[in-house]
Amino acid sequence: MKLPQGFVASATAAGLKSSGDKDLTLIVNEGPSQWASAVFTSNQVVAAPVLWSKEVIKGSVVKAVVLNSGGANACTGPKGFQDTHATAEHVAKLLNHSSSEVFICSTGMIGEFLPMDKILSGLDVLSKNLSNDSVLDCAHAIMTTDSVPKIVNLNANGVQVSGIAKGAGMLAPALATMLCVILTDALLPVDAKEIFEETVDSTFNRIDSDGCTSTNDTILFMSSGASGVQLTQEQCASMLEETCSSLADQLIADAEGSTKTIEINVSNARSESDAVNVGRACARNNLLKAAIFGGDPNWGRVLAAVGTADAFMDPNIIDVSLNGVQVCASSAPGADKSKVSFEQRLVVIDIDLKVGVACATIKTNDLSHAYVHENSAYST
Amino acid sequence: MKLPQGFVASATAAGLKSSGDKDLTLIVNEGPSQWASAVFTSNQVVAAPVLWSKEVIKGSVVKAVVLNSGGANACTGPKGFQDTHATAEHVAKLLNHSSSEVFICSTGMIGEFLPMDKILSGLDVLSKNLSNDSVLDCAHAIMTTDSVPKIVNLNANGVQVSGIAKGAGMLAPALATMLCVILTDALLPVDAKEIFEETVDSTFNRIDSDGCTSTNDTILFMSSGASGVQLTQEQCASMLEETCSSLADQLIADAEGSTKTIEINVSNARSESDAVNVGRACARNNLLKAAIFGGDPNWGRVLAAVGTADAFMDPNIIDVSLNGVQVCASSAPGADKSKVSFEQRLVVIDIDLKVGVACATIKTNDLSHAYVHENSAYST
Repeated sequence: MKLPQGFVASATAAGLKSSGDKDLTLIVNEGPSQWASAVFTSNQVVAAPVLWSKEVIKGSVVKAVVLNSGGANACTGPKGFQDTHATAEHVAKLLNHSSSEVFICSTGMIGEFLPMDKILSGLDVLSKNLSNDSVLDCAHAIMTTDSVPKIVNLNANGVQVSGIAKGAGMLAPALATMLCVILTDALLPVDAKEIFEETVDSTFNRIDSDGCTSTNDTILFMSSGASGVQLTQEQCASMLEETCSSLADQLIADAEGSTKTIEINVSNARSESDAVNVGRACARNNLLKAAIFGGDPNWGRVLAAVGTADAFMDPNIIDVSLNGVQVCASSAPGADKSKVSFEQRLVVIDIDLKVGVACATIKTNDLSHAYVHENSAYST
Repeated sequence: MKLPQGFVASATAAGLKSSGDKDLTLIVNEGPSQWASAVFTSNQVVAAPVLWSKEVIKGSVVKAVVLNSGGANACTGPKGFQDTHATAEHVAKLLNHSSSEVFICSTGMIGEFLPMDKILSGLDVLSKNLSNDSVLDCAHAIMTTDSVPKIVNLNANGVQVSGIAKGAGMLAPALATMLCVILTDALLPVDAKEIFEETVDSTFNRIDSDGCTSTNDTILFMSSGASGVQLTQEQCASMLEETCSSLADQLIADAEGSTKTIEINVSNARSESDAVNVGRACARNNLLKAAIFGGDPNWGRVLAAVGTADAFMDPNIIDVSLNGVQVCASSAPGADKSKVSFEQRLVVIDIDLKVGVACATIKTNDLSHAYVHENSAYST
């Protein structure tokens, strides 16, 4: 699998992960364009690489991106920021470029310093092994508790787009413990930044695994323009929608300890934000998520969750279907709930508010023993 | 254990619980005062008994309260409301009183109709067995997944106050799957309603077990005035504070599947609501709660949770202590986290924001395998 034209990359095991797996990635944009845009976590407590990269992206130019797993470099104070800065300076020197165009992403444990000697010597190795066919290596190297790499690769309209992402736990809006890099060789329309941000909002920001928002979440979108093909607004929007949707779905399908993917479709809300709020209230309701884990068609928990949302509603007229069975009609018992099948991984919850015409879908997963297990023994 | 003067009560097994345990309670206020005040769930989806009792309490007079476990009568539509109405009418007839002063509380499964024949014949039995020494029976009869009854009984200033409560899961602000009745024989000051509401806000509304807010939560405060002793504002506030704090602590100590009680003390916030928001963001963070279950001193998750709160903060200057060990100083690693002991049930998290002088404490519990287990097999 090759990267889009204009990009080269490499990944290595620098020794940050005790497993010995790959943990350090360098991606370089050789142009001719080096345009980039990024969306970051909404958490007020952000990691050093997020602070750094927020400055870098102001110029809309990214020459290279470094991603490490095995350490988030979050809650590490001034020393953590100096470490990020040193990483960028080192890459700049290796590439004979400016550090102000070197973007940094980290993921892993919070509150621990990175082993800088390993990172800097790892980068030396990476800079000598850059190639065009390293997508899979890079996708592997950014994994933490992910069980599979997340990759998307599309060709359309004479351009290519490739995306890699990591997630697993702490997937919540704006964003997740999620790193994602999307690369394209297209020439983009002038409003590509707005199109990208809107797409992230309607894809990545509508998956909500456990309601927890991380310190490091970053989605970076880079264009080399090396195909020479200019995309229209519609083509750009379509390409990003397909890329981001695919990666978001892959993330939720691999959420920590999950046994079910839950799709919550809220319809006929008074506004889209109301629909999102209702969906998110359900996605964050532990009682509902535990019931789904148990294959329990306890639709009362859906309504109890809906009622906590900051959204206009008439609490007496809500319909709820579970996997196509309308178990609740006008907020009262409907069809026999024992007819609901939970055999498939996908569980679809349809909530009809009947107070407007707006709709939204939020995707989440169940709350399982394995989630508790994985997250009660992460750092020790 | 006797009820305060002026109150009689009875509890029975009416057949609502398949276990055969007590499930129906009637408490009657024989006066001379029948003053009452109540606080209800903030959920927009509320049960029929909540709709009914909200009307009753508008008159500030409650002659009798009926509480049933074994069925929430929530999401039951017009028929559910008719059932509550019929219950109140039946009690009114038995007591030769007005149904508009009969308060109703229900708890149990949502979305199922109550077996009205059992409730009405149960009430016939209860009305013939009213006595002054039935506190423990009543506390047992309102239990659902509670493992122990929650009772408080205080005597001070020549008056008595008794409180019973049930909770277990779905404990969240405003309020919880929580029913609570507080009875006193005191004569109350004119602003007793305001004192009661403020006390509920600083006690019950600061426990947050799993972030889920139920359809049925109710706290009812009734005074018979039978002691003839008039309380001052201060005495009333002190009595309610002690009563509500004790019951709230008992609820969180018995939260479904919990192995740890977590006390989150937020200090030096810019406002009390900021402090509450920070505490609640931690109390609702599954990753943090799972880490505590695992005895993992992963303080990074505290900071990651703090950063999601709607509160003013400087993310670079926050101190965090776990059980007295200051593991995080100015948002960076502090004392050796391996020194944190998790041997006790109580885990104290101190968060110093250093941006003001306001503080608040939120109490929650860990997220355990048993929580997932209990809540994945509730209705089936």
